[in-house]
Amino acid sequence: MAVYTDVSAEDLQVFLADYGIGRLVSLKGIAEGVENSNYFVFTDTGPFVLTLYEKRVHEEDLPFFIGLMEHLAARGVPCPTPIRDSQGQALKRLNGRPAAIASFLNGLSPRRTTPEQCAAVGRAVAQLHLEGADFPIRRANALSLEGWQHLAQACGKRADEVEAGLAAEIAEELAVLSACWPCDLPAGVIHADLFCDNVFFDGPRLTGLIDFYFACNDLFAYDIAICLNAWCFESHREFNVTKARALLAAYGQVRPFEEAELAALPLLARGASLRFLLTRLYDWLNPVEGALVTPKDPREYLAKLRFHRGVTSAAAYGIS
Amino acid sequence: MAVYTDVSAEDLQVFLADYGIGRLVSLKGIAEGVENSNYFVFTDTGPFVLTLYEKRVHEEDLPFFIGLMEHLAARGVPCPTPIRDSQGQALKRLNGRPAAIASFLNGLSPRRTTPEQCAAVGRAVAQLHLEGADFPIRRANALSLEGWQHLAQACGKRADEVEAGLAAEIAEELAVLSACWPCDLPAGVIHADLFCDNVFFDGPRLTGLIDFYFACNDLFAYDIAICLNAWCFESHREFNVTKARALLAAYGQVRPFEEAELAALPLLARGASLRFLLTRLYDWLNPVEGALVTPKDPREYLAKLRFHRGVTSAAAYGIS
Repeated sequence: MAVYTDVSAEDLQVFLADYGIGRLVSLKGIAEGVENSNYFVFTDTGPFVLTLYEKRVHEEDLPFFIGLMEHLAARGVPCPTPIRDSQGQALKRLNGRPAAIASFLNGLSPRRTTPEQCAAVGRAVAQLHLEGADFPIRRANALSLEGWQHLAQACGKRADEVEAGLAAEIAEELAVLSACWPCDLPAGVIHADLFCDNVFFDGPRLTGLIDFYFACNDLFAYDIAICLNAWCFESHREFNVTKARALLAAYGQVRPFEEAELAALPLLARGASLRFLLTRLYDWLNPVEGALVTPKDPREYLAKLRFHRGVTSAAAYGIS
Repeated sequence: MAVYTDVSAEDLQVFLADYGIGRLVSLKGIAEGVENSNYFVFTDTGPFVLTLYEKRVHEEDLPFFIGLMEHLAARGVPCPTPIRDSQGQALKRLNGRPAAIASFLNGLSPRRTTPEQCAAVGRAVAQLHLEGADFPIRRANALSLEGWQHLAQACGKRADEVEAGLAAEIAEELAVLSACWPCDLPAGVIHADLFCDNVFFDGPRLTGLIDFYFACNDLFAYDIAICLNAWCFESHREFNVTKARALLAAYGQVRPFEEAELAALPLLARGASLRFLLTRLYDWLNPVEGALVTPKDPREYLAKLRFHRGVTSAAAYGIS
């Protein structure tokens, strides 16, 4: 929640001279984003967002992320459109960091989701999965089974500092998921991080998906499992099956589920829970000195993991 | 450089219902401001800034600050206009904090000032001094001689951690200023913190003065002395007399200086230097655990203080 690399008006005026987006009239750092520095840029042609990519983002991944947004926006998926300069470049450098300018999307991120919004998310994710199919660059998911193993090892017995027995519970879960994880389900480009603060709405209408910096190639149904966790639990961690049904039904209307996908959904949802449990646990156990962001409580995702472990079929999610 | 109080879209939609400024379409935390939380608020009628006043601002001062901005804006001084709700209230509460919405001003803060910008600042400050004359609320300057004494005591001998002999130099300076500080010069409402990041420009044209949270009643020429320090030194701490001449001459065209004001300017500039030397020194010696802002180097203002101590008349500032 900060700006890590300082950009002055003078710096940006020089940078903008390469673009055909008008004259700079306002520049403000945006207090959001953990990975990157974001600036709100107003020119006399309208608002834009400037992103400087900081060290946690691998530079070699940027052509995937920026190319994907451009690909999806061109196909009507509501997401920021990277702006190319007069040389045709969208990925440039500013003040020593890789940098890109994208269109600014209006819309508000909900704190409390509605079933209508869940349905809109389902439709948008299905559209993203379909339209991403012919995107030519590939990026492996660094936070799948193998990544989880590394995180679990890095946390080790210290997981028990969060809750007694947690280290053993994680090891057991990893063993089950490693043995049963499906590899023959429909796959392609997924968002992989579609939390509420990465989706904008104008009332019930979805106006934007943002933050593609975990996007990768993986199982479509795994992306849906991440969304179920992010959109269909209430603040006290109760699962809201009405929201889940809305999300899944709307997804299925755009891209019908295969039977095997629905059958695998409870297991994929366990994996999606473990993924965020492990990253949060790691950040919780290894707080960064002077960090601007409070680590999120890993137990939220432990509760979700246990919920899905009790689910025997997708019927529990309101679909069958 | 942060947002201290969290505001959700849902919170703000309820809050905005009292105002006639349209429907919320975007909400972003702004990564600036040390004292308060600022949000960029876009409604379908345009952009606004929402400020939540945090604990470092005394709540009893808010009617002065908000009333002053409204007073000045109504008289054509370019500054944010506080928006009143349908009950006529500009100062309200949101999420437990005092809160106000103001108009959004376009413009860019310079990192490197030009003589033209210095002249524009001089004109705007003179206009502020003239138009503030009939503002009915008064606020004493908490950071004048008495406040400096308290800060100097609080720093004590530890000042020497920054530079050997600094504690004695501060004590000596305070003694001189206490003995000679003028009290019969023209006075009224002053901004008292007009650094470059509190002024917006469109090229050479000044479009806004912001951040009135140190404004108070004090000597007009002391406000000018603060501006000389903020606008007329180069990054390597050389005094740029061309910029000073431009600032002072432009000020004098709008509000002519009295002879006594010019005669006192070197002493007032020493006071203006000591004021920022002391607040920076205090923050430097007492860093706040987990603070989001790096303390500024107090030695910059020590260098300015020493420069002004060598000045014998306002001729050194390019005016006489």
